Amino acid sequence: MTSAKASAKGSAKFDYAPLLPAGLPAAAARWTGLARYSFVGGNNDAEQVPVADLKAAAEAALTREGHTLATYGLASGPQGYLPLRNFIADKLKRDAGINCTSDEILMVSGSLQALDLVNQALLARGDTVIIERDCYQGSINRLTRMGVNIVGIPLDDDGMRMDALAEALADLKAKGIRPKYIYTIPTVQNPTATIMPESNRRILLELSAEYGVPVFEDDCYADLIWDHKRPPAIHALDTTGCVIHIGSFSKSVAPALRVGYIVAPWEIMSHMLALKTDAGSGALEQMVLAEYSAAHFAAHVPKATRGLRAKLDTLMDALNEQFGTAAEFEEPKGGIFLWVKLPDNVDAMQLYQAALRAGVSINPGPEWSVDKAYAHSHIRICFASPSHEEIREGIAVLADVCRKEFGVPERIANVTQG
Amino acid sequence: MTSAKASAKGSAKFDYAPLLPAGLPAAAARWTGLARYSFVGGNNDAEQVPVADLKAAAEAALTREGHTLATYGLASGPQGYLPLRNFIADKLKRDAGINCTSDEILMVSGSLQALDLVNQALLARGDTVIIERDCYQGSINRLTRMGVNIVGIPLDDDGMRMDALAEALADLKAKGIRPKYIYTIPTVQNPTATIMPESNRRILLELSAEYGVPVFEDDCYADLIWDHKRPPAIHALDTTGCVIHIGSFSKSVAPALRVGYIVAPWEIMSHMLALKTDAGSGALEQMVLAEYSAAHFAAHVPKATRGLRAKLDTLMDALNEQFGTAAEFEEPKGGIFLWVKLPDNVDAMQLYQAALRAGVSINPGPEWSVDKAYAHSHIRICFASPSHEEIREGIAVLADVCRKEFGVPERIANVTQG
Repeated sequence: MTSAKASAKGSAKFDYAPLLPAGLPAAAARWTGLARYSFVGGNNDAEQVPVADLKAAAEAALTREGHTLATYGLASGPQGYLPLRNFIADKLKRDAGINCTSDEILMVSGSLQALDLVNQALLARGDTVIIERDCYQGSINRLTRMGVNIVGIPLDDDGMRMDALAEALADLKAKGIRPKYIYTIPTVQNPTATIMPESNRRILLELSAEYGVPVFEDDCYADLIWDHKRPPAIHALDTTGCVIHIGSFSKSVAPALRVGYIVAPWEIMSHMLALKTDAGSGALEQMVLAEYSAAHFAAHVPKATRGLRAKLDTLMDALNEQFGTAAEFEEPKGGIFLWVKLPDNVDAMQLYQAALRAGVSINPGPEWSVDKAYAHSHIRICFASPSHEEIREGIAVLADVCRKEFGVPERIANVTQG
Repeated sequence: MTSAKASAKGSAKFDYAPLLPAGLPAAAARWTGLARYSFVGGNNDAEQVPVADLKAAAEAALTREGHTLATYGLASGPQGYLPLRNFIADKLKRDAGINCTSDEILMVSGSLQALDLVNQALLARGDTVIIERDCYQGSINRLTRMGVNIVGIPLDDDGMRMDALAEALADLKAKGIRPKYIYTIPTVQNPTATIMPESNRRILLELSAEYGVPVFEDDCYADLIWDHKRPPAIHALDTTGCVIHIGSFSKSVAPALRVGYIVAPWEIMSHMLALKTDAGSGALEQMVLAEYSAAHFAAHVPKATRGLRAKLDTLMDALNEQFGTAAEFEEPKGGIFLWVKLPDNVDAMQLYQAALRAGVSINPGPEWSVDKAYAHSHIRICFASPSHEEIREGIAVLADVCRKEFGVPERIANVTQG
């Protein structure tokens, strides 16, 4: 249309290229829809969205206080809808052992905005931070774009390795570098799904105190543990205010609702609040979630996790059937993803491209790790969104693609490939 | 609680101050609620929020596609909920003369996120932009924080003065400076409420083409014109793709719903989309707004503006009664605010502080202008949120405060002050 108009009137197309600043991320590609078999992103099981209860919550909340939508931030001010903050304070006390009041909670537009606000409040170009070596892509990308030096700590079955963390902190101190924070996803770590035991959380806090480095605790998956036995949050074990804790409703209720939160001392929250220049996060979503959660959250989560656990079983069965010993993984204790090691000759980036052409999307390990060589043959497979049938079919297609590209997995004798 | 815990366990409070980067904005103060008489912010009339229709929209949208909340961005991808983009494309065609498709629209979390995305896609520290001399505080503050040089163009009754713009562009060119954009709120300008006539919009586009500077058109108040006769958007008059157009539902439906949009060519939108790393704006708000707007938007807006027009009359009557000739203003053709000139000896910043102590909040002119001296005695008064009675009472209190602080307005003979 632009070109038609332009040619009709003889106008040249405006050229933005000379105006773009240095350092922009690559331009986005046009969206072409989800893959036929989509094992990426934090999408949930569509069947688990509690639609009827959300409708009732919307009806009740709007009836009672819909008129407050005329005011930015409703009647609750810039920290977000007070009944939701009160629910979160109660939930964090009950589930994570955190003692906080609604005054220490800032509602944000998904935990991604929490990442941005914490980063903006603490980081400048050239700063150093410590994170888990294998880590959420969005966290890594944000730090890279800000020009921050990232020190990645390897993980074992207990999450971030405390010996490696101690060593890294000592090394940095010897170089005169005080990292700005230690970022961890301690409970259902992304992508390894490990859970840091309480003993390690206490060591982490000791190291934090020794080196004067705050802990940035990202607990967005912590609700989704199969046996619902989670260790106390790191925030709960702290007595000094050195922990910034963030969470989300994306994984427990619905990702398209953009509602997350930050728990932090006012000393640093006051800076994040000053940086939150969006006139508040979406009020309708906060109202509906608060209304819904007060009545249904506690019962919903076990139901949702049972569904996730069943899908994980399907995924592990499919991997065993299709890949045999070529796919190595630890059985997660919760969450929505599996971190899979394929044979060393598999280039996960190449597999990612080839699988996408075959209708299967996966996360290639190098995008989820600061150690690209370590993660060369790893992939992350999200299992919440596809159906059981799609999981089985998609993993079969993935195995076919992998075999064609890399010769592994070898064809397994007792399985007929479609 | 932190201090109690700390003293109980003997732990010192963690000190964030040494970790804060240079250049942070001032920390936020704790929220203490709205003023008794609040004439600030873009808040709407609570009575005008269409609660019943929003409830019905939530019920219908959730019934039909609530399960899609399991997927980030619903089934519409990262540009936002497709039915809402389709509504906006139709609305912009009908109301503003803009020819665009849903592919050229990006849904964002209020037009404040639009400001951030446009700025991030085009600006670096040290760049120069052109804006209206008197301008939305949030726009000025964003540019100041980014370290961008601001050239303010004076306004007359027709908005941004084209002679002054031509002069500024020529001056900058002589200095070898190509501004990154010309930012304008052409339709119900904030704070002057002026409307730029079509002839000036065409001149603006000619200047844009001559100097190779894109136009950043912020049209968030354009729905609220008393006679509903708005000129075509600048975007509608352009044939080259040089205009980035943004809009919002905050003023027309409800500000606490954080839903705005950007209309731009893919060449620049693809960069903004890459910078929008929030996994989509709130889906429930987009679904409900789309459902609501398709059925009710066109009828709602005239009803809402009639209410605003009546409140403006009350405000102008109250100002005439309380301030007499000491308050100078032009009658706006639309919007939610009045830009008032008080006598030269009134220091608007001082008046703002004194009025706040008396329970009246206003916007002091120097915060809404890049020329602090020019705006020294100006104030912005928003009239949408307070009731008619609150407008009358609040303006009486404001006049009392102003009289005590500055000796103006003089007591008016035939009015008994309370």
